[in-house]
Amino acid sequence: MKERIKRNVIVGQSGGPTAAINSSLAGVYRTAIDRGYKKVYGMLHGVQGLMEERYIDLSQHITNGLDAELLKRTPAAYLGSCRYKLPEIHEDQALYEKIFKILDDLEIDCFIYIGGNDSMDTIKKLSDYAIITGSDVRFVGCPKTIDNDLALTDHTPGYGSAAKYIGTSVKEIIRDGFSLETEKGMITVVEIMGRNAGWLTGASALSKGEDCTGPDAIYLPELPFDVDKFVEKCENLLKVKSSVVITVSEGIRTKDGKYVCEMGDNTNYVDAFGHKQLTGTARYLAALLAAKLGCKTRSIELSTLQRSASHCASRVDILEAYEVGGAAMKAADEGDTGKMVVIQRLSDDPYQAGTEVKDVHKIANDERLVPREWVNKEGTYVTSEFITYVRPLIQGDVAAIMVDGIPRHLYKPGYQDML
Amino acid sequence: MKERIKRNVIVGQSGGPTAAINSSLAGVYRTAIDRGYKKVYGMLHGVQGLMEERYIDLSQHITNGLDAELLKRTPAAYLGSCRYKLPEIHEDQALYEKIFKILDDLEIDCFIYIGGNDSMDTIKKLSDYAIITGSDVRFVGCPKTIDNDLALTDHTPGYGSAAKYIGTSVKEIIRDGFSLETEKGMITVVEIMGRNAGWLTGASALSKGEDCTGPDAIYLPELPFDVDKFVEKCENLLKVKSSVVITVSEGIRTKDGKYVCEMGDNTNYVDAFGHKQLTGTARYLAALLAAKLGCKTRSIELSTLQRSASHCASRVDILEAYEVGGAAMKAADEGDTGKMVVIQRLSDDPYQAGTEVKDVHKIANDERLVPREWVNKEGTYVTSEFITYVRPLIQGDVAAIMVDGIPRHLYKPGYQDML
Repeated sequence: MKERIKRNVIVGQSGGPTAAINSSLAGVYRTAIDRGYKKVYGMLHGVQGLMEERYIDLSQHITNGLDAELLKRTPAAYLGSCRYKLPEIHEDQALYEKIFKILDDLEIDCFIYIGGNDSMDTIKKLSDYAIITGSDVRFVGCPKTIDNDLALTDHTPGYGSAAKYIGTSVKEIIRDGFSLETEKGMITVVEIMGRNAGWLTGASALSKGEDCTGPDAIYLPELPFDVDKFVEKCENLLKVKSSVVITVSEGIRTKDGKYVCEMGDNTNYVDAFGHKQLTGTARYLAALLAAKLGCKTRSIELSTLQRSASHCASRVDILEAYEVGGAAMKAADEGDTGKMVVIQRLSDDPYQAGTEVKDVHKIANDERLVPREWVNKEGTYVTSEFITYVRPLIQGDVAAIMVDGIPRHLYKPGYQDML
Repeated sequence: MKERIKRNVIVGQSGGPTAAINSSLAGVYRTAIDRGYKKVYGMLHGVQGLMEERYIDLSQHITNGLDAELLKRTPAAYLGSCRYKLPEIHEDQALYEKIFKILDDLEIDCFIYIGGNDSMDTIKKLSDYAIITGSDVRFVGCPKTIDNDLALTDHTPGYGSAAKYIGTSVKEIIRDGFSLETEKGMITVVEIMGRNAGWLTGASALSKGEDCTGPDAIYLPELPFDVDKFVEKCENLLKVKSSVVITVSEGIRTKDGKYVCEMGDNTNYVDAFGHKQLTGTARYLAALLAAKLGCKTRSIELSTLQRSASHCASRVDILEAYEVGGAAMKAADEGDTGKMVVIQRLSDDPYQAGTEVKDVHKIANDERLVPREWVNKEGTYVTSEFITYVRPLIQGDVAAIMVDGIPRHLYKPGYQDML
């Protein structure tokens, strides 16, 4: 059997930032080098940047083992990301020709794309095009999303670190709430990311333990949100507690499909510039509770902090992200194309998991939601099954490499130009 | 010389929560026990709780060395806090009689109060009353505030940990901002606590380093905020950067004294319940920039997360808080009253500091602001002197005691009743 001469690899990142996406990049790089590829290119800002021939030679940025460790601890897409969905092949064949020309010029054998649903769609289309045209470039996807809504995989790298940050921060918010007593009590509404899937909001229950009550109620976007019942529940909680903490998903909707964050819209909610401003879900609910119950309220949005908090990353998550990156590279090296690496859980306790390679055509943009049976009957809390699922994913810490009191990250490509 | 028979100590916490206030409590407790006091009581919710005879015996909660370590890592006021200013003695003498009767019943020798300006006012009034009435109870204050605005002391425990959290989180926000490119660029406005003093907002400059540009501009409340110049500066920044990050103090005001967070108020900014809603400073500015520059904008409030993030505490801060607590107890034991412990900096590099005892009457509710010369001429960034001042205070980490993936805190008094 004739041995294949290995040439180059290109890797890109796509979609929203996470605390683990760069660990996958480090995994791809390491395995590519270990398996004898000459160069590992990084697309700047995903396929969108690639089409403009924006890329770097990663070996000039990951120059030693310490750089790789820094990369694993660097939040957000190191290479830059994009939100871009390729057109269908028949819609713009010239675009595909352009991309493959660039890949050809760079002598690419393997194309690895780290991202969520849109990225897997990119892998699918490019691998289809390769088959049609007889190209032997291999295309493999590496899953990433804090939302944990990708199908086929037990969970997604990025989710565990976000869940750990949410559990930790909500626990601190709960303590903070008990510090000061107010005459009529206080309700804090915490808004957590997730338009359709409640995996992140459910993770706020991780704060519950021997030393913390956890949030008093949790509202996921999978179930219709009943405003009246919510107010009633808060009123009852205030009768027994001086400080109530509620976590809500940004995407909660009433049963007629209306987003709670759009409800302020019924009134003249117009900003100083005449633009309709959608108030946040938590802000709306906090204002509602203050008006209805006369108590002090507070709203907190965890915002982008929850997706880029490398300083509070989960060791399991960072290591799995690294493994998944390596597994994607291995799969491509061994001839797979049109595939995505997934994580298969072998056991909850002790937690064990491994990677598998699945056909990317089977993803079909399905969103994996929290199962109904993992939420209590009332729809106000996650069950122990949910906790059993998520708890292993937040285990262990990744000690930040501290320089002068602040976590060090790997230099951003092009950063020197900005100084 | 006749040896004094030592009886009991009482300690309380007051004002806003911090990540270090419980370390001071641990310090007071440890020194009281070491110096032979029989009991250490903890007021629940400060003097306000004390007046209702709400207190605990701390030895029942801090039962061993591990408990003390957990307490040092527990955010927000462990004993519960209050915002309460004692009336003048001549206004309500009966109230003072009541408090001293309770102290007498509990056989209190030393009264330690951990807090900010209002707490020092409490120490002043109670020690004055003791002198007037011939009581030999000693009253000593232990400084605490994330705002770092207390006079007489070089800095205040609680500030260093908040500064470390802000520097770390703003650095992560800056990375996050560079992930996605948008056609017209993006501006993120981060709102940081501080009505009058810019110590916390200035700490966002700690994110700047060899691997990070830091925020592109920093606006402190000490200087008048010029909205037009702000917009112009952002416009210029957008010409050279795809992602701009600005940090602002919640208390920034225009030169006629109007809070920026009240500016949305000029329009029909009314919520769903007919109440005037003051939009946040960052939210207002982000909306303004979107309208004026047509770019994508984002606002982030660090909210209560910045004051209760024990998971990101500074080792220097936690240790100094502990020392200051011990020093307050030592001072009271040795006969001081009407005093406050302060931190005196001996050297910036290498950083060295020690405690001193000062007359609490000298505090006089002065707010210590950022000196004008520690802000650049344009008023848009802190100088290297500011960084030299704050950098030592964020050094070192306090490893959280992790249980099942989440930091463990010390049981809250009364917590078991809530389960």
